[in-house]
Amino acid sequence: MTQFVGVNNMVRWIQREGVEKITGDMIVELESDFGKWQSFEKIPRIASHSPIGVIELMPTSDGELYSFKYVNGHPSNPTRGYQTVTAFGALAEVDNGYPVFVAEMTLLTALRTAGISSLVAKYLARKDAKSMAMIGSGSQAEFQALGMRAALGIENLTIYDVDPHAMEKFRRNMEPLGFHVTLCSSADEAVLGADVITTCTADKQLATVLHDAQVAPGVHINAIGGDCPGKTELDVNILHRSSVFIEFEEQTRIEGEIQQVGPEFEVTEFWNVIAGNHPGRVSDEEITIFDSVGFAISDFVALKVCQRMTEGTDLQDDIDLIADPDDPKDLFAMTLVSSPVR
Amino acid sequence: MTQFVGVNNMVRWIQREGVEKITGDMIVELESDFGKWQSFEKIPRIASHSPIGVIELMPTSDGELYSFKYVNGHPSNPTRGYQTVTAFGALAEVDNGYPVFVAEMTLLTALRTAGISSLVAKYLARKDAKSMAMIGSGSQAEFQALGMRAALGIENLTIYDVDPHAMEKFRRNMEPLGFHVTLCSSADEAVLGADVITTCTADKQLATVLHDAQVAPGVHINAIGGDCPGKTELDVNILHRSSVFIEFEEQTRIEGEIQQVGPEFEVTEFWNVIAGNHPGRVSDEEITIFDSVGFAISDFVALKVCQRMTEGTDLQDDIDLIADPDDPKDLFAMTLVSSPVR
Repeated sequence: MTQFVGVNNMVRWIQREGVEKITGDMIVELESDFGKWQSFEKIPRIASHSPIGVIELMPTSDGELYSFKYVNGHPSNPTRGYQTVTAFGALAEVDNGYPVFVAEMTLLTALRTAGISSLVAKYLARKDAKSMAMIGSGSQAEFQALGMRAALGIENLTIYDVDPHAMEKFRRNMEPLGFHVTLCSSADEAVLGADVITTCTADKQLATVLHDAQVAPGVHINAIGGDCPGKTELDVNILHRSSVFIEFEEQTRIEGEIQQVGPEFEVTEFWNVIAGNHPGRVSDEEITIFDSVGFAISDFVALKVCQRMTEGTDLQDDIDLIADPDDPKDLFAMTLVSSPVR
Repeated sequence: MTQFVGVNNMVRWIQREGVEKITGDMIVELESDFGKWQSFEKIPRIASHSPIGVIELMPTSDGELYSFKYVNGHPSNPTRGYQTVTAFGALAEVDNGYPVFVAEMTLLTALRTAGISSLVAKYLARKDAKSMAMIGSGSQAEFQALGMRAALGIENLTIYDVDPHAMEKFRRNMEPLGFHVTLCSSADEAVLGADVITTCTADKQLATVLHDAQVAPGVHINAIGGDCPGKTELDVNILHRSSVFIEFEEQTRIEGEIQQVGPEFEVTEFWNVIAGNHPGRVSDEEITIFDSVGFAISDFVALKVCQRMTEGTDLQDDIDLIADPDDPKDLFAMTLVSSPVR
């Protein structure tokens, strides 16, 4: 029988364990699996674009487990009362092809995105980083802040969003958790003096939410909102004075900030830093960018962590997904009226 | 809330409606949607191959609805007590990206495969076709026979399988439904005098389950087992004396019988016959082949038909797949211990 973690149980799991604990566990697993980069099957996600959004499938496999995620991105959804991003996914055994675990992944995606951002920042941000500026205060913002605290200990946050209600929401959620949150009236104000800058806005357009002049030497930029063809956030000039790290080159060339530059623009797949093939940050003045678009291996890890941590608990339900006739060649017998329906 | 039809309810649905009624409805919808070929987004399915099987994702969209199917193919599964093919899939609204319908698709795939085979045979088999030979008597066989009866009225079946138990199973299932079933000791015996030949075997190899000399003029060959790189069923010489019809060229060149011939080999995408761009069969002596590998539009149709026919009944369950916070920008609030879990 396939196990299922729906939204309700995902919420209960997060409430039991806490976002920081889960993100912390994911950081460990992400580091391990990105370190085994060569053993994964990797393809750019398969996108179906419409005028107002995108629906994507993100498969990968390490030869033992296969995973995929279904995920949409519809920037205008919140104005209609919907989530910008919803997702669900599955783990399957490569050996027999049976799906063994299905989960909602709207919340799980928020956790894994915070996980990979934080893991990368742990490697690339300056060791003395104490503050983070956040441009964009939507569904992902709090998860990012908690992930960065788990990885870097950062508690000082400056935030800017065009929607003041979204900023108030962020403060309301974060201050009780011990963060020092400063709401800003401009991106300029937010980024002043910040050691890490996270950009996470939703508009599907070639936007510039961060200008070149706003980026001081030594900053680490965690750029997660530019993740789709025609959807970027960074002034292209920032790219030219920075070291750019990405997840999977073939996908990021299509979807990331680097869609603004040519194929000759030099980037480093982040797994090389874990594997010791690349030194990562080499000076306190270097500007590092994680041009993150979200990659299937992160979802693979998120599903594995969720499956393992909820196994044998009341958080997993059976889901009736596998047709299992007594004789495997006699599927038809299941449809005969005389056969019992289990 | 997303609606779900699990295996148990899929079985109950098929038992209530009957395979022939459902296949008949699917034939109508398949004809309609293959006729709107240009309005669909089409890509070859995304395959993840392992030494003993394949796991595939099959997405498509008509601009209003999006669908995908997860499906595996593991020929050695029955010897270990598993199904060769298991599947599940979803329909989503393109407008907001939300999944609205999820279903098991192991049974549903059997129905839709029978549906598309039968629709194509209705167009391409001789009008006076009275008998079908079947090479392969696995999970798909009964569905094929019922589909062909719905479309062509064929009740005379000759069948050959290397596994005598599988043939006995077929007879046991089909004779009570009014079919005349002859079990044969060779493919030669089965195909002798048959008007339609269906090949549906599971081995993942370049096999020859049907030889050139076994194919008489005027036959329609429904070749559905060769559906994967390195997995074919037909003697290549048959292709050279036949008119070959396929689902989607880009995918079938990789997966179909025509992987045995070069890209210059002429084929016709079947939708052209529905649309009147191609005459289909032009003589009673012509050999026609449907080199079927299974295409996403057929799954799209199957999901739509199942959704529509089970709507408002006890066959659909709610599935807890959509995180739906009160404030769409405040996903994080769902994770706070003080917030109620719905």
